[in-house]
Amino acid sequence: MNVRELTEGLEIDIVLLVRERAQERVTLADRTASLSAVVPPELLELCVPGACVRVSGRIERGRLRVGALRHARTDEYVLEDLLDGPRIDLDRMESDLRELIATVQCVHLRALLERVFGHGTETWLAFREAPAAKRYHQAYRHGLLEHSLTVAQGVSAISATFGGVDRDVAVTGALLHDIGKLDAYTSDPRAIDMTDLGKLQGEIALGYYRVRRLIEDIPGFPPELAAAVLHIILSHHGQLEHGSPVVPCTREATLVHMIDNLGGRLGSFDRLEKALPDGSRWSGYDRALGAGAWFASRERQAA
Amino acid sequence: MNVRELTEGLEIDIVLLVRERAQERVTLADRTASLSAVVPPELLELCVPGACVRVSGRIERGRLRVGALRHARTDEYVLEDLLDGPRIDLDRMESDLRELIATVQCVHLRALLERVFGHGTETWLAFREAPAAKRYHQAYRHGLLEHSLTVAQGVSAISATFGGVDRDVAVTGALLHDIGKLDAYTSDPRAIDMTDLGKLQGEIALGYYRVRRLIEDIPGFPPELAAAVLHIILSHHGQLEHGSPVVPCTREATLVHMIDNLGGRLGSFDRLEKALPDGSRWSGYDRALGAGAWFASRERQAA
Amino acid sequence: MNVRELTEGLEIDIVLLVRERAQERVTLADRTASLSAVVPPELLELCVPGACVRVSGRIERGRLRVGALRHARTDEYVLEDLLDGPRIDLDRMESDLRELIATVQCVHLRALLERVFGHGTETWLAFREAPAAKRYHQAYRHGLLEHSLTVAQGVSAISATFGGVDRDVAVTGALLHDIGKLDAYTSDPRAIDMTDLGKLQGEIALGYYRVRRLIEDIPGFPPELAAAVLHIILSHHGQLEHGSPVVPCTREATLVHMIDNLGGRLGSFDRLEKALPDGSRWSGYDRALGAGAWFASRERQAA
Amino acid sequence: MNVRELTEGLEIDIVLLVRERAQERVTLADRTASLSAVVPPELLELCVPGACVRVSGRIERGRLRVGALRHARTDEYVLEDLLDGPRIDLDRMESDLRELIATVQCVHLRALLERVFGHGTETWLAFREAPAAKRYHQAYRHGLLEHSLTVAQGVSAISATFGGVDRDVAVTGALLHDIGKLDAYTSDPRAIDMTDLGKLQGEIALGYYRVRRLIEDIPGFPPELAAAVLHIILSHHGQLEHGSPVVPCTREATLVHMIDNLGGRLGSFDRLEKALPDGSRWSGYDRALGAGAWFASRERQAA
Amino acid sequence: MNVRELTEGLEIDIVLLVRERAQERVTLADRTASLSAVVPPELLELCVPGACVRVSGRIERGRLRVGALRHARTDEYVLEDLLDGPRIDLDRMESDLRELIATVQCVHLRALLERVFGHGTETWLAFREAPAAKRYHQAYRHGLLEHSLTVAQGVSAISATFGGVDRDVAVTGALLHDIGKLDAYTSDPRAIDMTDLGKLQGEIALGYYRVRRLIEDIPGFPPELAAAVLHIILSHHGQLEHGSPVVPCTREATLVHMIDNLGGRLGSFDRLEKALPDGSRWSGYDRALGAGAWFASRERQAA
Amino acid sequence: MNVRELTEGLEIDIVLLVRERAQERVTLADRTASLSAVVPPELLELCVPGACVRVSGRIERGRLRVGALRHARTDEYVLEDLLDGPRIDLDRMESDLRELIATVQCVHLRALLERVFGHGTETWLAFREAPAAKRYHQAYRHGLLEHSLTVAQGVSAISATFGGVDRDVAVTGALLHDIGKLDAYTSDPRAIDMTDLGKLQGEIALGYYRVRRLIEDIPGFPPELAAAVLHIILSHHGQLEHGSPVVPCTREATLVHMIDNLGGRLGSFDRLEKALPDGSRWSGYDRALGAGAWFASRERQAA
Repeated sequence: MNVRELTEGLEIDIVLLVRERAQERVTLADRTASLSAVVPPELLELCVPGACVRVSGRIERGRLRVGALRHARTDEYVLEDLLDGPRIDLDRMESDLRELIATVQCVHLRALLERVFGHGTETWLAFREAPAAKRYHQAYRHGLLEHSLTVAQGVSAISATFGGVDRDVAVTGALLHDIGKLDAYTSDPRAIDMTDLGKLQGEIALGYYRVRRLIEDIPGFPPELAAAVLHIILSHHGQLEHGSPVVPCTREATLVHMIDNLGGRLGSFDRLEKALPDGSRWSGYDRALGAGAWFASRERQAA
Repeated sequence: MNVRELTEGLEIDIVLLVRERAQERVTLADRTASLSAVVPPELLELCVPGACVRVSGRIERGRLRVGALRHARTDEYVLEDLLDGPRIDLDRMESDLRELIATVQCVHLRALLERVFGHGTETWLAFREAPAAKRYHQAYRHGLLEHSLTVAQGVSAISATFGGVDRDVAVTGALLHDIGKLDAYTSDPRAIDMTDLGKLQGEIALGYYRVRRLIEDIPGFPPELAAAVLHIILSHHGQLEHGSPVVPCTREATLVHMIDNLGGRLGSFDRLEKALPDGSRWSGYDRALGAGAWFASRERQAA
Repeated sequence: MNVRELTEGLEIDIVLLVRERAQERVTLADRTASLSAVVPPELLELCVPGACVRVSGRIERGRLRVGALRHARTDEYVLEDLLDGPRIDLDRMESDLRELIATVQCVHLRALLERVFGHGTETWLAFREAPAAKRYHQAYRHGLLEHSLTVAQGVSAISATFGGVDRDVAVTGALLHDIGKLDAYTSDPRAIDMTDLGKLQGEIALGYYRVRRLIEDIPGFPPELAAAVLHIILSHHGQLEHGSPVVPCTREATLVHMIDNLGGRLGSFDRLEKALPDGSRWSGYDRALGAGAWFASRERQAA
Repeated sequence: MNVRELTEGLEIDIVLLVRERAQERVTLADRTASLSAVVPPELLELCVPGACVRVSGRIERGRLRVGALRHARTDEYVLEDLLDGPRIDLDRMESDLRELIATVQCVHLRALLERVFGHGTETWLAFREAPAAKRYHQAYRHGLLEHSLTVAQGVSAISATFGGVDRDVAVTGALLHDIGKLDAYTSDPRAIDMTDLGKLQGEIALGYYRVRRLIEDIPGFPPELAAAVLHIILSHHGQLEHGSPVVPCTREATLVHMIDNLGGRLGSFDRLEKALPDGSRWSGYDRALGAGAWFASRERQAA
Repeated sequence: MNVRELTEGLEIDIVLLVRERAQERVTLADRTASLSAVVPPELLELCVPGACVRVSGRIERGRLRVGALRHARTDEYVLEDLLDGPRIDLDRMESDLRELIATVQCVHLRALLERVFGHGTETWLAFREAPAAKRYHQAYRHGLLEHSLTVAQGVSAISATFGGVDRDVAVTGALLHDIGKLDAYTSDPRAIDMTDLGKLQGEIALGYYRVRRLIEDIPGFPPELAAAVLHIILSHHGQLEHGSPVVPCTREATLVHMIDNLGGRLGSFDRLEKALPDGSRWSGYDRALGAGAWFASRERQAA
Repeated sequence: MNVRELTEGLEIDIVLLVRERAQERVTLADRTASLSAVVPPELLELCVPGACVRVSGRIERGRLRVGALRHARTDEYVLEDLLDGPRIDLDRMESDLRELIATVQCVHLRALLERVFGHGTETWLAFREAPAAKRYHQAYRHGLLEHSLTVAQGVSAISATFGGVDRDVAVTGALLHDIGKLDAYTSDPRAIDMTDLGKLQGEIALGYYRVRRLIEDIPGFPPELAAAVLHIILSHHGQLEHGSPVVPCTREATLVHMIDNLGGRLGSFDRLEKALPDGSRWSGYDRALGAGAWFASRERQAA
């Protein structure tokens, strides 16, 4: 039985992961969904984010009223079942990534991508594990790979619709745009958090340094090409007030920024739909959308 | 000889179209490019936007110093040579449109598209002629078709990258999103301007009325499907401050808004690149971009 | 005994309406005022907005500490006593409305107003019942009529102070400006909420469609006059960021927008004064005002 | 012949007032309208704002092409004919003012108004002459009286529509709200400008000081009443970013702010309509409105 | 034992001051720090801000779980031990102030400062007691003196670094910039609050009136010098949206505004560092900073 | 004779530097001031920014009416006389810099400063020549040194006024905060412009890379100290919308940002005062200040 399947009135006794705690409010979760829990005060101390807990209680008005709660023994659960994860499995994502990289024609960009994503490189080992965020969309193991790959696929799919785009540069920039998150987030999948460097320097500067430093070591990398790629990383938030120190001033940077943005917004719908009670068509007000999200009925779509 | 080919110091005597006049500043143009002109005061009165004038003078510091200027006789020019136009010819755009419409599965949406784009319908006759704007990008005959088609193609291309999108609704919404421009702009290709209705009601309300009125006359059109399409039209500017009375709250509306936006921004690059002096890599500051645009050298791209 | 008269320490046993519930916080109300209630967890489930409940308990520190609570029998209360309502009774408002309409000289506008407010028309039956909002000011039965009438009276009173105003157009626009709320809100007076159309299309577009559709069926209605009235509806929020797709560009639209705005702000004072504890002169911080409201003592005013 | 009557091609030789000069652009005016002039470089030095000049030339494309220009002799013109002025004559405005003051019941407020507007007081002598602005609406002799009176009349007319307003306080505040302009502007009607105090302290602080200082000398003036009036002066710009150090937190302050604002916006229409070329229905884009202004045809209004 | 020294698990029985109460959340404090307390519902009524209470309970997860709580007898505590206060003692601040005033050369400014800060003047008696704010930094007895003195010392220290500053004017303005707080806040050190005048007129207008009124009574005070000092008071919030009716347009006003601002921001770090749990390097998100604050380890600094 | 001394009506024949040209408007300058010039159309082509021209003409209404103009021969002028420059000479600035560096106690920071400012290092050679901006304040040779030194001196002067500041870190950060300008601006003192890297990556990212790269090569540099210094560079614009990818979250970063900001604002006064016509007390409206600047008379200051 997983959280997605829990229904009103059910009595449960299962292992869950503590996702968050704000005062008395505790969020428990497994891979399929999360659940608000009412925890007796004397048990609150055990609810440290990242802990796996054995919990029994009853679902009342959509929340779990906790009766008993203790640390779970490691033989009581499989960690993978408790952690949220990508829609597609890792192997498939890796092969999709290698396929996409293979379409990049420019030898310099290929060399750069090889240094980042090459089998056995330290970067690749970290990249494929890393989350894409602290909370919300893709805040889980492999999330960074999933996000970067999807954005790059979107960039690739649409790059021919509008003229004048240098596809190689755009796809490379899309794959690397969030690489600073390797330094900006901790990698413990049970309790993702920002690092000191993440807070003090920001993921954009960190990613810029990483890629510029790598390029510095590739012989013959054309300076102008370097500028084009680094500009994508620096400008991909699109506006100064969103943390980019420069705004996009090339077609490729504009494209990566917009598809990244699109991915983020559509990701909000995924997140809201997951949390939608059965029978509901409207989510609550969502800050990212500036409105509630509306999900048309599936029936018509099938018709 | 067309405007794109004019070089410093050249003496010319050709027919051009008056594009704009602000005080002493006159902009002349043909299909290929536009040109700032210094017109003697006594000739300014002839420079009414939309007029075709026979003009002689000399190119000095990138501007035309006009010596003589008079109304052109109709046998001195072919109007099509003077008007800016789409990159792709009308027939090709029309067949691309029909092809795209043919991919829409839903019978109701097909019926709606038929009423708008069907051969011989009044709407189609107006639509294929209409410009997409008063100035800037696609401010020319067939511009509305070019713009709507491109956005719909982009929506179609990317709709599978991110999950959960109802492609039929999104493509239909993309094709119809700007239909209010039929009422909001005058159709004279030589002097596009906003109509009274365009100024008093806005293209969004006008398009909403048109489509809702058409749907009202289609028997059995599902109300929820109508709501989904109308919502795209109303929300496609993405934010209240950009003139949408509601923000996108479906995946399809989000997608159309973002691809429309992307098309607009990439269109700015096209416009700036057209006006770029030979050898320049940077355009001047552009308000839409919030920066100058940078065009990487073509050589590398070929490499 | 009604809520307005409850004082600290009082023991009560009365029927009240559930106005709102957010987690453990329940708001109970009758026609005269509302009251925050502390409800035992096991009774929370009965507190559905719109329900009439028989409740007993004690007023402690301005809140009702609930002892017992159950659904009220229909013979235990009169619904009208529980619902908030306008200051003036319906008949008086209707006669004031008809009087005001009678001052409109223009036959076309009179015909339009007749179609909306004529005895027995479907619109009038809905209009006189409808609320003006989901919460806050005039969120009750007849609220839309009260609000529209007051704004129109204000417009009428001040239209001569400043020159150049077409009083007929302004008064008509004032009476119709919020008519989209007929479609945007549900009409159940016990639990007012936004409809799907209200969320997806917005009250402004909905009102615009209604009035334009009505005008379409009135023979000989001058197009320019239609444009003037529809422009008032579309622009009455005053700014794009407040949801109007166009800004007021006529004197009449400016006037309706400003008096509507003035009514809303003064309505905030009414709401805050109602909730003011005895002896207090200052309300708490109010977002709409951007400050607390100050109520000067009544004595001086009498002096 | 006055400026309002000038038509294309006319040769003129008349006395006009220099209203503004920005580089080569000179604006000439009489009481009825203003006119852009093209002045030969050698004559520009004479065009000091406030100067009365005898000018001859020809109207070309809506502007005066100046042939000759010299300082006018004082026997060549009557200053009143050259200066813009209020719609209503001074005597009428003064009697309207005294009538309005007579409706104020509160003895303290009457005493205060007497100290400001009493016959022969220094304040009244200055007030009735003063302009209401440096440029735009009511930037002329008696403009401050006209503006203050109109706002107070509007406040008086609408104060009963919405409940709870202390009419005496509101009308007094409306009459005094802009009194700081006495110190903030120079009074020379030919060249209105800000004073050093106006720039360094602002009209709001200056008006607040004046009225608080006057009240300090009225025996027995209730402190709370003083606070209510002073609050109107301080808050009448409505928002901090518009220069009010506090926002309106009484009904009376809200009312004065909104009617002042309404008066300003409708005044923009007056200004734009004055400058509208014959036959035009649309003004150009106006920053204050955020759009062009539309003036419906007079015929219908007569119908 | 004081609050700063309390550690997890400790059982206490001490007298504390009630600092704030928001619903069930009570903040208790002594001079050294503040503490969140969980108070049983039946005792909440005693927790009025400003009350001194004898409280016993246990520190659990950083908060005090209250067992018993009653009003403290006056022989059970010394008020000074419970109230927060300045870092430097009053006598030292007073002598620093007199020293700084002695460096002002201009006789007029010296006369003005004498009327405000002279021994035995009513202003000085109030000034040295007054708090600088209602909450946050320097919200305690002598806080206004501490704040004004620090800003003036900073202004004095840096006035020579950048050229052209009139040090006398800048230091005088710095000492007087917040003098309106005498009227804007109540002086009871146990429960600092805004006065009616503070809310209705704002501290800036109140300070401006005070100083202008004092200057009015100093014979021969140069008007331009008065304008320079008053401008500093009016503009010291730096921007209209922060409540200054005019922006700084002299070097001296710019300097006072910026150093006041700097003092406020660095004060946020003091406040956050005080509340930092042992071993922590990051505070939580702080609205004033727009981020969390980071405190580097002390060891390195010593190294 | 230099530009500062030119008076109305004077006939001149001197060598000047072309500072800017926008269409017909040419700005000429020498070290002491700049001058607007009216240049005959046929000579405009010679007016390339950075060119030294021999020009004759007459001062009319504050502008130079050019009669003749040609390229100056190199024996006709000394470049230093034409270029604007710092108030203090280079040697003095260098010794002040070395003195300030000598006060830094921390060996790691001293090592870093040595690598940047050490005699004979490449960085120092570039740094001491570089300008601080493209236009406005300190847009001249040695401007970067002058600006960085002044900010660091201000930081040093005020660091003791407020407690808790790590002076070594703050002074180091102040000296390095703008080092990215070495890469962001061209160094030709006659025509300062942004580089491609400056536009595509921004001075903040460029400076961050430089310093982080230097630190990477210093053995044993503590990571936390590196983070503290790099954070100052990244955050010194103070807000995301001003181009900093992170906001200041340490006392030292706050201090450097604020003193840099203060320097910039006071620099605006210097610039405006330089351009102030004799006898004027008010500059025109200045965007940076949001107002005109007021300069009190010097007499009083002497008194």
